Amino acid sequence: MNKILEIHEADSDVVVQSGVRWDDLNHALAEKGIPLFFPLDPGPGATIGGMISTGCSGTNAVRYGTAKGELFLNITVVLPNGEVIKTRRRARKSSAGFDVTKLFIGAEGTLGIVTEATLRLVPKLPTSVAVAQFPDVSSAVSAVTEILQSPMGSHIQCVELLDTNMMEAINFSGLSERNYPVKDSLFLKFQGSPASILETSKLSHFQSARNAKESEELWNHRKIALWSSIAWMNDDRTRAWTTDVCVPPSALPTLVGESKADLDSNGIKHTIVGHCGDGNFHAILMFRDDEELEKVRGAVHRMVHQALELDGTCTGEHGVGVGKTKYLSEELGEGTVELMRTVKKAVDPLNLFNPGKLYPDPKTER
Amino acid sequence: MNKILEIHEADSDVVVQSGVRWDDLNHALAEKGIPLFFPLDPGPGATIGGMISTGCSGTNAVRYGTAKGELFLNITVVLPNGEVIKTRRRARKSSAGFDVTKLFIGAEGTLGIVTEATLRLVPKLPTSVAVAQFPDVSSAVSAVTEILQSPMGSHIQCVELLDTNMMEAINFSGLSERNYPVKDSLFLKFQGSPASILETSKLSHFQSARNAKESEELWNHRKIALWSSIAWMNDDRTRAWTTDVCVPPSALPTLVGESKADLDSNGIKHTIVGHCGDGNFHAILMFRDDEELEKVRGAVHRMVHQALELDGTCTGEHGVGVGKTKYLSEELGEGTVELMRTVKKAVDPLNLFNPGKLYPDPKTER
Repeated sequence: MNKILEIHEADSDVVVQSGVRWDDLNHALAEKGIPLFFPLDPGPGATIGGMISTGCSGTNAVRYGTAKGELFLNITVVLPNGEVIKTRRRARKSSAGFDVTKLFIGAEGTLGIVTEATLRLVPKLPTSVAVAQFPDVSSAVSAVTEILQSPMGSHIQCVELLDTNMMEAINFSGLSERNYPVKDSLFLKFQGSPASILETSKLSHFQSARNAKESEELWNHRKIALWSSIAWMNDDRTRAWTTDVCVPPSALPTLVGESKADLDSNGIKHTIVGHCGDGNFHAILMFRDDEELEKVRGAVHRMVHQALELDGTCTGEHGVGVGKTKYLSEELGEGTVELMRTVKKAVDPLNLFNPGKLYPDPKTER
Repeated sequence: MNKILEIHEADSDVVVQSGVRWDDLNHALAEKGIPLFFPLDPGPGATIGGMISTGCSGTNAVRYGTAKGELFLNITVVLPNGEVIKTRRRARKSSAGFDVTKLFIGAEGTLGIVTEATLRLVPKLPTSVAVAQFPDVSSAVSAVTEILQSPMGSHIQCVELLDTNMMEAINFSGLSERNYPVKDSLFLKFQGSPASILETSKLSHFQSARNAKESEELWNHRKIALWSSIAWMNDDRTRAWTTDVCVPPSALPTLVGESKADLDSNGIKHTIVGHCGDGNFHAILMFRDDEELEKVRGAVHRMVHQALELDGTCTGEHGVGVGKTKYLSEELGEGTVELMRTVKKAVDPLNLFNPGKLYPDPKTER
């Protein structure tokens, strides 16, 4: 299930089996000298099937959208009744009814088993990375909104927020030879023609990489967030609970501020890294024993509730699984959850596929 | 039902009732001095509710995606059982299950009645228009692929193909004071920072507008395609059948070439205008009486079949309605159509909402 089946360079698309990993696909394209890539970039090693089922995204989503957008042209699915269907053809656009593909994106395997997918690729463009420090999260988010709504906004491929703790962890980890200022920081990746990249380097506040090597180095420091966080604890027993929530972008400073205050007051060591352009952030919460685990559990619960109060979602890109089913009715409303159950019952009347996941059980719901 | 309910400038979104027209919304935003707009641009006067129900797109789709992408953050829907639901919250991203919003996009009112929607807005950027002539459609499409896959590609907001007939019609109509070369032509709209716009003006082949006024003028000539086509006939009895199909972009020259040959050999006067970056085109087929109408009907049928043979769709953005239900099983496969019917039956067991539309009747299917 890990074969690349067809590459259509002129159409910027590719047909793959669902076990293909996104990073392997991009390496394979690069090796063949094809100047295109698949822009969804969740954790390294994620497979296309998993990415479809969780409705993932990643750092490039601010430019290219998420799995729920238009990057999956069609998928081949085994339905619970044994039927094998292909949801659409290879045209980029279609108005031939509602898009059945979308039923399976984010359904966490409860409606069908994905076996193949046709993916949109995008051109590899010159990129450049820049870093900036801010006095607080609020100033960082304001700066992002301002850039995104300016002509420079069309050049932003990624815009990542790393909080003071995360910067301290990266310094501590020894995984970077730099010593960053321990401040709320933005890591931006710009893309575009050489002249436009040059323009972005004039943005005030930002220190731009001077060359491709430095860009890669800076971006690597963003990418080692999880490992740095654990290294920072300097303790073999440390484990990490990673969670994610997403709110309208302007509410991000409120949510990050309140969450950090709550975590600090409960003595929970944590780092935060956010897909700031979309109002989405990950909290990495460290614990060493069951007592600390319980504290972390409580903090995640409060963070989700606060996200919902701010018109947000209990998960921006990680999915529901078992742990977050209890938030769905509050987030979506009972009518919407009931509609999801109606679809599930119609497609999988015997509840064969991934039972217990995603849909809250009406009997045990809070 | 035509009220703008909330404008969230810092979040780049807006909440509207479903009777709001996209062009009125953009005028209202401009009047308030808000530097954002809603990029879906089907025919002028289209309402948000209709745009959701047909799964529309338009000239900006090559940059911002279609209605099936991520421009609708959530919608409020009245279900056939009388329940009123809101599909999601206002966060830009969510992995809280499959996106129920998408069930209603392109469902042509068969699953629910949309009453409100939260729309993503995008920044208004400086733009510039350029025009180029090509010896044939194939060279034009190759040029588009080349630009789209180059660093300039990130600056393309629209790329429209107008065939020789369409250029002749525009010249004839008197709606333009220019006299264009009667050749297969591309109209491109670039966006970005001033420096990047300047760069695009150096593209070989293309004649760039020298200023904003000229850009607007050129773009208007693209926008008068339908009226010009009818004026071209110079005959009060003329009516037009507009249809659209979509194929993988590299198959567009084949489809346009074969379709034009078929139309010519049947004596059907026609013009073609295409959203060339996405492999989508509209054919405007003229007829004056029932006999010509029947010829047109036959030509549309052959055009759809040819699109399906090329791994395309019977409709890129117009929808299925009644006329194209008969192509759905061939395009999507019987299993996929049956899944659509299963969802329809589960959500609307009494078949109350828009009966007869979209889903092919298994009894009368070819």
